[in-house]
Amino acid sequence: MPERETPTTALCRHTLTSIHYRDKNLVEELLGSDVDFAKVMSEHILARELSSAELRIVNAILIAIMEHGLTPSAIATREIYMSAPENLQGAVAAGLMGVGSQFVGTIENNAVLLAQLVALPDEETRREKAREIIAVHKTRKILLPGFGHHLHKPEDPRAQRLIEMGREAGFERGFLDNLELLGEEIDAVFAKHVPINATGATAALMGEMNVPVKLMRGFAVISRAAGLVAHIAEEQQRPTGRFIWDLVDKSVPYKE
Amino acid sequence: MPERETPTTALCRHTLTSIHYRDKNLVEELLGSDVDFAKVMSEHILARELSSAELRIVNAILIAIMEHGLTPSAIATREIYMSAPENLQGAVAAGLMGVGSQFVGTIENNAVLLAQLVALPDEETRREKAREIIAVHKTRKILLPGFGHHLHKPEDPRAQRLIEMGREAGFERGFLDNLELLGEEIDAVFAKHVPINATGATAALMGEMNVPVKLMRGFAVISRAAGLVAHIAEEQQRPTGRFIWDLVDKSVPYKE
Amino acid sequence: MPERETPTTALCRHTLTSIHYRDKNLVEELLGSDVDFAKVMSEHILARELSSAELRIVNAILIAIMEHGLTPSAIATREIYMSAPENLQGAVAAGLMGVGSQFVGTIENNAVLLAQLVALPDEETRREKAREIIAVHKTRKILLPGFGHHLHKPEDPRAQRLIEMGREAGFERGFLDNLELLGEEIDAVFAKHVPINATGATAALMGEMNVPVKLMRGFAVISRAAGLVAHIAEEQQRPTGRFIWDLVDKSVPYKE
Amino acid sequence: MPERETPTTALCRHTLTSIHYRDKNLVEELLGSDVDFAKVMSEHILARELSSAELRIVNAILIAIMEHGLTPSAIATREIYMSAPENLQGAVAAGLMGVGSQFVGTIENNAVLLAQLVALPDEETRREKAREIIAVHKTRKILLPGFGHHLHKPEDPRAQRLIEMGREAGFERGFLDNLELLGEEIDAVFAKHVPINATGATAALMGEMNVPVKLMRGFAVISRAAGLVAHIAEEQQRPTGRFIWDLVDKSVPYKE
Repeated sequence: MPERETPTTALCRHTLTSIHYRDKNLVEELLGSDVDFAKVMSEHILARELSSAELRIVNAILIAIMEHGLTPSAIATREIYMSAPENLQGAVAAGLMGVGSQFVGTIENNAVLLAQLVALPDEETRREKAREIIAVHKTRKILLPGFGHHLHKPEDPRAQRLIEMGREAGFERGFLDNLELLGEEIDAVFAKHVPINATGATAALMGEMNVPVKLMRGFAVISRAAGLVAHIAEEQQRPTGRFIWDLVDKSVPYKE
Repeated sequence: MPERETPTTALCRHTLTSIHYRDKNLVEELLGSDVDFAKVMSEHILARELSSAELRIVNAILIAIMEHGLTPSAIATREIYMSAPENLQGAVAAGLMGVGSQFVGTIENNAVLLAQLVALPDEETRREKAREIIAVHKTRKILLPGFGHHLHKPEDPRAQRLIEMGREAGFERGFLDNLELLGEEIDAVFAKHVPINATGATAALMGEMNVPVKLMRGFAVISRAAGLVAHIAEEQQRPTGRFIWDLVDKSVPYKE
Repeated sequence: MPERETPTTALCRHTLTSIHYRDKNLVEELLGSDVDFAKVMSEHILARELSSAELRIVNAILIAIMEHGLTPSAIATREIYMSAPENLQGAVAAGLMGVGSQFVGTIENNAVLLAQLVALPDEETRREKAREIIAVHKTRKILLPGFGHHLHKPEDPRAQRLIEMGREAGFERGFLDNLELLGEEIDAVFAKHVPINATGATAALMGEMNVPVKLMRGFAVISRAAGLVAHIAEEQQRPTGRFIWDLVDKSVPYKE
Repeated sequence: MPERETPTTALCRHTLTSIHYRDKNLVEELLGSDVDFAKVMSEHILARELSSAELRIVNAILIAIMEHGLTPSAIATREIYMSAPENLQGAVAAGLMGVGSQFVGTIENNAVLLAQLVALPDEETRREKAREIIAVHKTRKILLPGFGHHLHKPEDPRAQRLIEMGREAGFERGFLDNLELLGEEIDAVFAKHVPINATGATAALMGEMNVPVKLMRGFAVISRAAGLVAHIAEEQQRPTGRFIWDLVDKSVPYKE
């Protein structure tokens, strides 16, 4: 095997008396008068400074996908917390495992489609490509990622607001435009309005901010971690774990 | 078995056209002009509004414990990400499992000690209790949670700054006072300066904010989730996973 | 910091043409005519050969705690599998996190009590100590680990059979005797029969086999991993994930 | 939304005095004189009885992929165990998350290819399809799943033995034949011998046993759970966690 070059890290270094996050002194620069976790963590992850318009969008995304009640993730977290309350982190980790292909992962699938559209030279070729994408999904009977919501109609209220905020931010990379273009073509093909959902809007906003597709899910993980901690906080005050267990056990009968 | 009362949730409700986080309309109230993830999530978790002084402290805590380079958690996350890059959430979850008793969990152990001191009526009884606590730990050869750091001397720079910020916030529940009191007694007993570390300062600040002890770890989990996503972002650009594997494999020899 | 001695591993070594598990050649010795996973893994974990009587007990333990229907662990696994079916291992991992203090972890707590009794010189001091242990638990209103089962009465059928098998194995370290002694004293103190449960019997059997207390949970983890894979197999054929989600969502109402 | 049919489970039912795994009484039928965990769990997962020849293969697979020293999974488990030793299950879960696409997941990718070949009517069309598959992988510079091993040459000793055992079992569904056929074509195209590896052999054996492709990974998860428990057992006796941490921290230097 050839010698591999020694890898390096740019995330953190420390001395006896200081800690540095990338090129910033943690104590002197980041724990100053204007401490802002969302800003520090986003810039730490993305390795660049964010404009205040971008930072506003990051905050909005993190808020919008943090919570949606007793979701599969929240149920998993609550059941595990009941079983191992000494191990809060495990209960959060269990729920986070649900940030997968079926719900949040659609962010990435949508972003990939939008990136294909953005790369095309003009609106005509984009509409053509959009129709082609839709046809493929229709043939395979796959939902179009980023569109439709089983609980919200006619619009996913989060999506509408996130897109509006993206417009206010003055983004110009074309992801928002192509999300809406794709939505128009979907409505035409299916002859009914299929709303853009929160993951679709999130994908477009992250695309506008040039977040790598395979890193997008990371922001969802952080946001959901916060939401799941809230579920644990509530579980500590108003436990549901055993109720859910009994409910499920008696509602799914045995049958050979 | 007696009928159990049906449990309820106060975290989230939704209608066809709206989502509410506790008593706030997500789109109209939380995704407004002053979107702030740290504020929304902290208030969601703690079920109360935070003063701007408190919010500043929450931001500082989340920033201060987010990152410390190639820690055990970060190593776990990187090794798992290499093995299953399609599953970012699993790599974060793996690292989060390290937020346990040996490092971050000391926040809780420290908070319990501080709460004991805070409950006492005057400084004399507190100093007495502090010496008693120290004696028990010394006898059992257990480190005092919240004190000492193997990398930072003579002070943990984060701890100093966090305490200073807590003073600026005007906290008055006595946790900061008793953390310092405990530190003084430790120095006296061991006849050398043992610094307050970041987890000790965090415990005192959360105690001042009346965060339940068994919920404190939740904030560390959120903060570390962000830090671990940064490690994955770096791994995508500068992979270390296989280097670490080869390094460990050849450095831990076989011996019967 | 003093130089630490380089640690070593005795678990595995490999050459270009062979792999060795401890001192055994994998291909030539372990994949021979009498391949037996339970034997290979138990001896690998415990670093010693097991008698056939011991091996029979290990098999019985692994079988007995593998499955108990729609438990909290199984619910978590199913909810996560629905969310991320591409990531089977994450769904199993989520469920395994439930092997904590409230259910399986009682194995360890029971084993600690039994070890205290075993260490005493005669039956009289053991009964005295047993009554003392019971009194402490009663005062603190804590259940005695290893005793009682909310679904099985008057006996936990698994426990009875496991104890019987332990007797057949001819164990003589005293854990089974002291489990029964403790049970007798519990019945006397509470003036009713409280059955030994499966975790109690498991603790005694592992104690007889000299499994370290803090390793006992490991066997439960392996056993439950198998059970959870069966739940995923069933979920692939007869999905329950969305049914459970809808059921829980509508059964836990919103209330401020 | 239309009423969904209530789902059912066939895995387990219990009465006050009995527990049944599928149609078997746990205590009377499974904890009898011939207790065998590998048999009980495999039949529980696959919902059918296994012949003794099949059971021998299941045991062999579980043994063969249980352990390979300080792998990424084992490193993750050891680092997490050091951080949270109170939470053994979390350390195993962390390592299990590494059973993903890059290593074990190749079982599935290989099985899919073999299934394509098995479905064809004669050897000629199979060889043609095999060359087509190889060409696609070569063009995309992707490794052929199930082939090649960076540590074992000229053969992966496990693979050879597993295939031999499959032949002894008299399997006739064609997966073993097509694995060897694919290997011959690979050697021809690359003009050198590329060995079948353990995951390739495992895929073929599971294909012969009609295990659904998307369930194959489940057996790897169970097997690795056992291997990771052995790593924890060793960590309890000869800790490596801190050594690995220090080693990695000093070997991956900071560079902006």
